[in-house]
Amino acid sequence: MNFHVLTLFPDMIKDGLGTSITGRAIDSGKITLNAVNIRDYTLEKHGHVDDYPYGGGAGMVMQAEPIYRAYQSVIEGIKNKKRPRVLYMTPQGKVFNQQMARELAGEEDLIFLCGHYEGVDERILEMIVTDNVSIGDYVLTGGELPAMVMIDSISRLVDGVLNNKDSAEYESFSDNLLEYPQYTRPEEFMGRKVPEVLLSGHHANIEKWRKEQSLKRTMERRPDLLNNIL
Amino acid sequence: MNFHVLTLFPDMIKDGLGTSITGRAIDSGKITLNAVNIRDYTLEKHGHVDDYPYGGGAGMVMQAEPIYRAYQSVIEGIKNKKRPRVLYMTPQGKVFNQQMARELAGEEDLIFLCGHYEGVDERILEMIVTDNVSIGDYVLTGGELPAMVMIDSISRLVDGVLNNKDSAEYESFSDNLLEYPQYTRPEEFMGRKVPEVLLSGHHANIEKWRKEQSLKRTMERRPDLLNNIL
Repeated sequence: MNFHVLTLFPDMIKDGLGTSITGRAIDSGKITLNAVNIRDYTLEKHGHVDDYPYGGGAGMVMQAEPIYRAYQSVIEGIKNKKRPRVLYMTPQGKVFNQQMARELAGEEDLIFLCGHYEGVDERILEMIVTDNVSIGDYVLTGGELPAMVMIDSISRLVDGVLNNKDSAEYESFSDNLLEYPQYTRPEEFMGRKVPEVLLSGHHANIEKWRKEQSLKRTMERRPDLLNNIL
Repeated sequence: MNFHVLTLFPDMIKDGLGTSITGRAIDSGKITLNAVNIRDYTLEKHGHVDDYPYGGGAGMVMQAEPIYRAYQSVIEGIKNKKRPRVLYMTPQGKVFNQQMARELAGEEDLIFLCGHYEGVDERILEMIVTDNVSIGDYVLTGGELPAMVMIDSISRLVDGVLNNKDSAEYESFSDNLLEYPQYTRPEEFMGRKVPEVLLSGHHANIEKWRKEQSLKRTMERRPDLLNNIL
């Protein structure tokens, strides 16, 4: 699976995803990450990529042309004849969730467009964007972190990216129940003990305790998730 | 405002927040970013920070002691007598939103705890964590990206972090209407023209057009936001 990111901050993308599980997936070729610097595609001699908004107002607006040319360079590099989806990171978009991650993990190529400053010229959005996506109801300084969040979440669903050491992490969220509490060595830490059932070696009891804990937590912290089951 | 991040990947945090607006805020001293490597606080001679879960199961669990010692080092470095809030990044948490960002921007120090692998020993969470926070209903490989997202979102609400060039970005989301479309030079791009009203210089008409566009978009894309107004 190939991720292409159109951004003014390619190093942020590369550094942020170059460590840990996504970094290992890139090194082993399970995914590729192509961070394209929009600034490299401006025809403006001082390297500008933005200008004042028509109609006035604060802030600067990213211009259509450098983005269009950066996009074209990605398209030309893709052998696949199918036009890839282009995701624009915006608080105006559809809110990203695990189901969308699963759906996007089925694509061969994905292009992420990261805005900055006041916004992006509407015309280029109309021309190339297929999906407006938000990662949540909060305001960020740009689209880079949302793109990284989505790439992390989608990558871990790609075959071979997770190994057994990682695989169960946060997994239970996927089946609509929150994770049960986890404990590891030592048996006692600053007066706090591991629940006895976990030391019993009695697998059925351990399973039962974990299931109960998951249900209890979900009721306490995220009762909305239970509605999806019931 | 001081952000402290307890993590196994301090470089990811520093690189990811070191550019653009948050990078400038760090350079100018408006915020500080203290990425603490949990691995530096293990007493285990091979530098291990995790172990197998009691009761069995896939994955590894981060141990209590290195986290506790990393946390203590942060607490000792804070002159403020008030114990800071400790935010644990987990899909089990309360979902982060703009209102929570505003509330947290009022704190002097915030500590973020980033989990990885299967999870974190429950005892250390009970001991130090004040808030469980999730950035959305999707699964990630660790807590680092969520911490970066929250720090970005909170930072931009700290006085002096945004300047006029940035300030309006995505701003309209805050008043529960989506942003109107933006346009910048040239007037025509690949046959697509800027709406005439924006070139008219007639401020009242421009305002009216923008307000209408914001309402129209909000109705089309995020009707749920309108419920908060009505």
